[in-house]
Amino acid sequence: MSPRPGNAHVHEIRVTWGDCDPAKIAYTARLPWFALDAINAWWEAMLDGDGWFQMELDRNMGTPFVRLEMDFLSPVTPRHRLICHVWPERLGETSVTFRVDGEQDGKLCFSSRSVSVFTRADVFRKMTPPEDVRAVVTRHLPQGG
Amino acid sequence: MSPRPGNAHVHEIRVTWGDCDPAKIAYTARLPWFALDAINAWWEAMLDGDGWFQMELDRNMGTPFVRLEMDFLSPVTPRHRLICHVWPERLGETSVTFRVDGEQDGKLCFSSRSVSVFTRADVFRKMTPPEDVRAVVTRHLPQGG
Amino acid sequence: MSPRPGNAHVHEIRVTWGDCDPAKIAYTARLPWFALDAINAWWEAMLDGDGWFQMELDRNMGTPFVRLEMDFLSPVTPRHRLICHVWPERLGETSVTFRVDGEQDGKLCFSSRSVSVFTRADVFRKMTPPEDVRAVVTRHLPQGG
Amino acid sequence: MSPRPGNAHVHEIRVTWGDCDPAKIAYTARLPWFALDAINAWWEAMLDGDGWFQMELDRNMGTPFVRLEMDFLSPVTPRHRLICHVWPERLGETSVTFRVDGEQDGKLCFSSRSVSVFTRADVFRKMTPPEDVRAVVTRHLPQGG
Repeated sequence: MSPRPGNAHVHEIRVTWGDCDPAKIAYTARLPWFALDAINAWWEAMLDGDGWFQMELDRNMGTPFVRLEMDFLSPVTPRHRLICHVWPERLGETSVTFRVDGEQDGKLCFSSRSVSVFTRADVFRKMTPPEDVRAVVTRHLPQGG
Repeated sequence: MSPRPGNAHVHEIRVTWGDCDPAKIAYTARLPWFALDAINAWWEAMLDGDGWFQMELDRNMGTPFVRLEMDFLSPVTPRHRLICHVWPERLGETSVTFRVDGEQDGKLCFSSRSVSVFTRADVFRKMTPPEDVRAVVTRHLPQGG
Repeated sequence: MSPRPGNAHVHEIRVTWGDCDPAKIAYTARLPWFALDAINAWWEAMLDGDGWFQMELDRNMGTPFVRLEMDFLSPVTPRHRLICHVWPERLGETSVTFRVDGEQDGKLCFSSRSVSVFTRADVFRKMTPPEDVRAVVTRHLPQGG
Repeated sequence: MSPRPGNAHVHEIRVTWGDCDPAKIAYTARLPWFALDAINAWWEAMLDGDGWFQMELDRNMGTPFVRLEMDFLSPVTPRHRLICHVWPERLGETSVTFRVDGEQDGKLCFSSRSVSVFTRADVFRKMTPPEDVRAVVTRHLPQGG
């Protein structure tokens, strides 16, 4: 995958006992959850505190996922905070691709790529995103400027 | 992706209120969880009731995931049982690829492919799987016979 | 607590690897989740398949919890199915008390009591339950006839 | 229940879209999870970063729950951070009682009381806690000093 830009947003997750399975590492199915938490945190950081909840209820905009890919490279444990680096990789007409790298103690634990489409929430129909959303994503694309 | 074989294992999931988000559909991060539940159920069905728990504790074998891909095609809701079709797609020297198709009311909701490696659980080190495990996977490969 | 009636509804849960923590038993915070799953299943069984999702969306009735008590008596593991016995213990003017006993291999693992109020879902306001709901609960009360 | 002491530990939780159900509030079964997260965070704060994971693996001490009570007073939503106030209420010979109050925007959302026993983790047997653990709990009891 393409390299992580220097200005990727950082979201920190406190991994706990309850996230772990008997192998003493975070259960695999928790990792997509963490990656999504990181993307939601990206929106919160970019839209004045508005994550998916406010986007849907206040802005009538949804961003349902159509695709998720993850590589699991190293186990996640409660020994260190999980540092998630999040950035948009591509903005399509009606879709956005996010990347999330999860690191612990300087080591890459997982790397994900996901694609969401923009929808008008009340009718669950694809749409082009509003201008301010398009602008904020564009500004953070790796090749952005 | 390659077509689903006729003998794919069927695992049924009861989707509930608590799985759903305010968009009234199962939250995206629940879907990898469901796919993993289905793979665990495949092992249970194939190994006399031994899922990941017993594989790890009684057989000293782990199958940590190294890769997950999912396409989300249609929302999952509590209106119908989620029928997961699970099958191994490929068996490598030390890895296995599983596919899971999730359907509701005859409609494909998601399709996943994941790769796990076989490990000796106590040392968390890659290994070739034991012969009975290799045999059961081989017997269910699409081209198998 | 009062003894379990003979006609308590039975809901079976498949406990898995992912439900367990590094102590190799189901994580405590999963157990209230299981108890709630059992209560939802009770409604599904009593209202022609309508659990909380359909109650809220199709019947405009919510049953938010105001109280939960649980005693944890024995660890829950993936070694046996978790058999949940569910029954209403008391029906108030606008509230209902449910009990859930979770058993594995004939041993009581947890026992819970919870109180929910009936609400008109769209306005999130307390209400007396509709007659058919009142009837079905009454019919399953321990002292019921 | 007894009043909250002024020095209760504060643990902040970011409630998200994925925590919410179709009623647009955090799903009830998430709230015990949040309360437990807060207790784990209390231990982390008191034992130099050691939460349940490190207590179990490094200190051979478990604190399994035997009892949980929760009152749900007001819905939890992603509109505000969830501020959890955590404190030990009572220390027995081999048990500890924790209280957690969850607040949003200055409003009490839930209040919980839970009892855990101290165990030697490797044998899952009740024990008196080590002196440093006893001391740190004692120091934070409401009547403490």
